[in-house]
Amino acid sequence: MIQQLGLIGCGLMGGSLALALKRAGLVQRVVGFSPSERTRQTAVELGVVDAAVTSAAQAAQGSDVIVIAVPVAATQPSFEAIRDVITPHTLVMDVGSTKQDVILAAQVLGERLPCFVPAHPIAGKEVAGVVHAEASLYAGKKVILTPTEATNPALCEKAQAIWQAVGSQVSTMSAARHDAVFAAVSHLPHVIAFAAVNALAAQPQADALLNMAGPGFRDFSRIAASDPAVWRDILLANRDEVLAQAKFFQAQMALLQTAIEQGDAQALSQLIESARQTRGPWRMNQQQD
Amino acid sequence: MIQQLGLIGCGLMGGSLALALKRAGLVQRVVGFSPSERTRQTAVELGVVDAAVTSAAQAAQGSDVIVIAVPVAATQPSFEAIRDVITPHTLVMDVGSTKQDVILAAQVLGERLPCFVPAHPIAGKEVAGVVHAEASLYAGKKVILTPTEATNPALCEKAQAIWQAVGSQVSTMSAARHDAVFAAVSHLPHVIAFAAVNALAAQPQADALLNMAGPGFRDFSRIAASDPAVWRDILLANRDEVLAQAKFFQAQMALLQTAIEQGDAQALSQLIESARQTRGPWRMNQQQD
Repeated sequence: MIQQLGLIGCGLMGGSLALALKRAGLVQRVVGFSPSERTRQTAVELGVVDAAVTSAAQAAQGSDVIVIAVPVAATQPSFEAIRDVITPHTLVMDVGSTKQDVILAAQVLGERLPCFVPAHPIAGKEVAGVVHAEASLYAGKKVILTPTEATNPALCEKAQAIWQAVGSQVSTMSAARHDAVFAAVSHLPHVIAFAAVNALAAQPQADALLNMAGPGFRDFSRIAASDPAVWRDILLANRDEVLAQAKFFQAQMALLQTAIEQGDAQALSQLIESARQTRGPWRMNQQQD
Repeated sequence: MIQQLGLIGCGLMGGSLALALKRAGLVQRVVGFSPSERTRQTAVELGVVDAAVTSAAQAAQGSDVIVIAVPVAATQPSFEAIRDVITPHTLVMDVGSTKQDVILAAQVLGERLPCFVPAHPIAGKEVAGVVHAEASLYAGKKVILTPTEATNPALCEKAQAIWQAVGSQVSTMSAARHDAVFAAVSHLPHVIAFAAVNALAAQPQADALLNMAGPGFRDFSRIAASDPAVWRDILLANRDEVLAQAKFFQAQMALLQTAIEQGDAQALSQLIESARQTRGPWRMNQQQD
């Protein structure tokens, strides 16, 4: 049971975790900080937080679990703001999509660095803000923890228990491995989807093109509607891995384009068959998504 | 009311149209041809066709509406097989994803060319075969007709009425325009999805990568599980337009990659914001998909 959850950032991700913990009866009180007065009001009105405060330090004060769920640029200031308030037994988590950068930012915690358990829940929506928070956001979803050598193992176990309690499947890996994996399966796919949508938008009669797009395009391009500030930060934080993955992708695009150009039906069939053999069975293993 | 529907090819697309017309009470009898005995048996067992025959000519004989729903390679032989059986009042349609190539193939109809109304229903699944046919496949979906100067206008109107009767939204455009539009919104996105999935599969620990992929990747890559023979034919039939669209896409990829490489946060934000402004509102206009 969490006595007090300190929520630093009352958006979709943090708000959904607060609602999930409340629904599970696992938290007595949620204190939330947002720099926006309107967000604070909405968070209280929606029952996401029990009290809204006007600084990160106030949200951290007296909290046994703190979740930092803010834009990347606000992460290091958040660590600085809570550093002198937390105890050695306080669990501090984030919910960011890149992990090496947040571990670097967390160094400002100094002797409280062991409190920090880097966390990445693989969940989200193409809409932001506390009004879209929902208790079921993390149910059945994966959560990756990337503890470092400095991390307190007892707090890492506590983090794991919390995410499992809201229905998530928890696994751990190194931050470097995490960032490489998610460059491949998430960050580069976003870049590709942005480019594909921009390629349509840049053409004359873009509206007429989009008007003819069907369900395939709808699903393929869904992630292109993601939040620009969030994705700018992710792509810059994980630049090297994203660019390395782009090279793998471009090599495969070149094979397909060459087969099409040369009218090489056999090579083209094999390339498409390879994609189907990879993607077809994967779909069936992931029905919890 | 259709007296007899001749189905040449009893797969997902043709089978679904037969079921939809039956459910709407718009067809008295469906006669289906498949070269596969097993498919013929299944089509009869599932009630997709009332009778299964062993040649395209038999399916066409006595039918007032004929739907050719076969792999591209079998299209021209199908036209040849029915040419001497149909009357000037017979409506012949296809359901293919490219239109200029099928119009070329239809030239073998000779003096029956006016019977042919090229049709492309924007619907499908990543599974093939008559067992996946369903009456609702075309409900709420777009259907594009691309009549030529040779097409009998009365039969074009009849085609339109049939698709509207199964719940589709019908529009017409030139075959050239159609092929350019669908290169942009469908064919190139498939190529991109094939390449993205193959790029993962080509890496060491591909399974570990895929195991971490979430809902964003699931939707983005869904079309990569499409049928290889179908997509090989589409991409080769529409080669020039697909390669032209690939150039637009690569130009946008280059802008994004450069912004990431150079750490240009402002340029990156603008590129992502552009994608969101295009894709975000589109989604809401397409809820019927």
